[in-house]
Amino acid sequence: MNLQPLKGFRDFLPEQARKREFVINTLKKVFSSYGFEPLETPSLEKIEILMGKYGQEADKLIYRFQDLGKREVGLRYDLTVPLSRVIAINQNLPLPFKRYQIQTVWRADKPQSGRFREFTQCDADIVGSKSLIADTEIILMAKKALEKLGFKKFIIYVNDRWSLFQNLSQFKQLSNQNKLSICQSLDKIKKIGKDGVIKELEEKGFKEAEQIIKIIGESLKSKDLNIIFDNLKKMGLEEEIKFDPYLTRGLDYYTNMIFEIYVENYQGGSLAGGGRYDTLIGFSAEKYLPAVGFSFGIDRLIEVMEKENLFKNIPLQSTQVLVTVFSQEYLENSLQTVSLLRNKGISVEIYLNEEKLDKQIKYADKKGIRFVIILGPNEVKKNEVTIKDLSTGSQRTITLKEIDNFFLP
Amino acid sequence: MNLQPLKGFRDFLPEQARKREFVINTLKKVFSSYGFEPLETPSLEKIEILMGKYGQEADKLIYRFQDLGKREVGLRYDLTVPLSRVIAINQNLPLPFKRYQIQTVWRADKPQSGRFREFTQCDADIVGSKSLIADTEIILMAKKALEKLGFKKFIIYVNDRWSLFQNLSQFKQLSNQNKLSICQSLDKIKKIGKDGVIKELEEKGFKEAEQIIKIIGESLKSKDLNIIFDNLKKMGLEEEIKFDPYLTRGLDYYTNMIFEIYVENYQGGSLAGGGRYDTLIGFSAEKYLPAVGFSFGIDRLIEVMEKENLFKNIPLQSTQVLVTVFSQEYLENSLQTVSLLRNKGISVEIYLNEEKLDKQIKYADKKGIRFVIILGPNEVKKNEVTIKDLSTGSQRTITLKEIDNFFLP
Repeated sequence: MNLQPLKGFRDFLPEQARKREFVINTLKKVFSSYGFEPLETPSLEKIEILMGKYGQEADKLIYRFQDLGKREVGLRYDLTVPLSRVIAINQNLPLPFKRYQIQTVWRADKPQSGRFREFTQCDADIVGSKSLIADTEIILMAKKALEKLGFKKFIIYVNDRWSLFQNLSQFKQLSNQNKLSICQSLDKIKKIGKDGVIKELEEKGFKEAEQIIKIIGESLKSKDLNIIFDNLKKMGLEEEIKFDPYLTRGLDYYTNMIFEIYVENYQGGSLAGGGRYDTLIGFSAEKYLPAVGFSFGIDRLIEVMEKENLFKNIPLQSTQVLVTVFSQEYLENSLQTVSLLRNKGISVEIYLNEEKLDKQIKYADKKGIRFVIILGPNEVKKNEVTIKDLSTGSQRTITLKEIDNFFLP
Repeated sequence: MNLQPLKGFRDFLPEQARKREFVINTLKKVFSSYGFEPLETPSLEKIEILMGKYGQEADKLIYRFQDLGKREVGLRYDLTVPLSRVIAINQNLPLPFKRYQIQTVWRADKPQSGRFREFTQCDADIVGSKSLIADTEIILMAKKALEKLGFKKFIIYVNDRWSLFQNLSQFKQLSNQNKLSICQSLDKIKKIGKDGVIKELEEKGFKEAEQIIKIIGESLKSKDLNIIFDNLKKMGLEEEIKFDPYLTRGLDYYTNMIFEIYVENYQGGSLAGGGRYDTLIGFSAEKYLPAVGFSFGIDRLIEVMEKENLFKNIPLQSTQVLVTVFSQEYLENSLQTVSLLRNKGISVEIYLNEEKLDKQIKYADKKGIRFVIILGPNEVKKNEVTIKDLSTGSQRTITLKEIDNFFLP
């Protein structure tokens, strides 16, 4: 039997799982401090809730099946459709509703480097406010979250989808479908350059490609963007914010402000993106609620944090002390010492198997535990303990009374 | 379109989701402080990994389907089989491996009060140690976790499956299957009493039912249990621990020590249970690794915590301050104040829509935010802010310079 996980699925062993916990906890703390509240929705949804919301290509990637009651169901594909459903059935939710949601999503995609069939998505959105302060807060919070993860220098590109579309309207023959197609090409400008985009547009049959690139490039910030930039400036964000008239974002549903955050020096793409989407939330056209938000991919964040060496100074290992067991005879002393330290709030492990002392010390070393306590005949006789500091190799023998002060900050 | 979640599945709106986060974070902190490490495994497993591990009845409850690549897959049914799989394919994991795992599991059960098809399971286990210190640590940690959630008085029932089976061996005609069947009845003794169990055993055809109850009831603690009780005593746990010769636990796989934790005064059943299972982990009989652990149901914990009113004193709402917006003219001042407070590490929201002041204050009240800051013409003129304390109704006007000291502890 092949016991490896399914393709595109992963086990997260402790080292990786600790990083995930650190990132998720950090994000939750930032979101809470901005007044956002957690939401959780089911993994399985009725298939009719999911289908037709993401486009035909995406529909094919939904994990769908018949459950035992012959209902057609599907695994959560993103966190926006569930948000929309929750808003629709909880009409007494106080608005604006500021929620974050960090949950698994599933896509039956071709697994490839950095792409998985099961991954953790993190969304934060404000539903029910057209105010540009909401847009401002979303950008601020996304940046703050990245800052708290240890990233230092950012470039935040911002554009306005609505005014981009207005500018494309100068080209009379363009249908809405044409405009979306142009947007998809414009989105690649950071990767393939202006010439690359012009070439692609011409291949798509847009003869005025060069003219489009020129006019879009010369366009000015919309009135909305001016206000948002002004708000951001008042909140201390100025240099990092750049108007990017070519920014389009992949998803079709954005209606106004859109943004992407890049880390300076890191070339692998944006770390966060989002924008305003005023015609998506709600399950009937008359009841659309305005919304603005952003998305992080947790796997991608961790990948970049690893590349940028950001986990280096984060204490992911929380056990401070390993209490060894010298022999059955002195087990009692070890147990009591563990108990003493735990009562002081110190994180402590006791070594479990009967082994030689050097094997016990190796275990601590392997697990990244800094201090090892030894209680042998010499120590017990004098009511003392020997404390070995594995980070320096030094050791000291102190009395049991001194022990809790030793570890407290 | 019916937008309600599927039967047996739930949305967790902020109030509930916050409680879940609090419980899960608390448990993780306790587990880490005992040297346990996190593990995460995929939601979907190959069906052959899941089938045949839980018994025939359970197999029927597995959510199974064919994925797009025609592989038979199933949703995670518990956290023990995935642990076993991870151990089998990572033979270089340092042993003993102490892991916790808090993840969703799915069971296509009949939904009924308190039973769901999707719920969060929390397991902590030590794999690779036969030492009775491991048993001791597992009991201590389970109790500590409940204590940190706010529970105060416990009764921890402990028994030894192995010696229970030994005692049943006095009755010569009992097969292993018979013994398991007797155990299932014994397990109900707290609910239906001795007479109830005797009746049930007799109905099952065990003529010596009364004799069985008597002999089991008179049995003494096994050698293992004596050592575990002695260890626990040295670590300060004595009164709460009770030997219960009738305790059997539902699951068949336990081999030695088993335990259940009850909260005094709460009649709804045990909050945690676990034990030693030395012949389950590993995918071939020669490679079994000894293991001991316990399980919490997160939903059940929250349900009991609500009944016992334990969330009362836990600050689940983290926003301390709402900064109101008096009018467009004074927006700038509000933005700057928000920024000032955030730079001091204070959790603050700004009101997003243009509304009258009393509506903004109502929003704060509804969300449980204690302080509201008002910046109107009078305040701005004098470089002051008015702070309203919604918990008392009182308000004070102070200078901008004093503002951060006001909120810092």
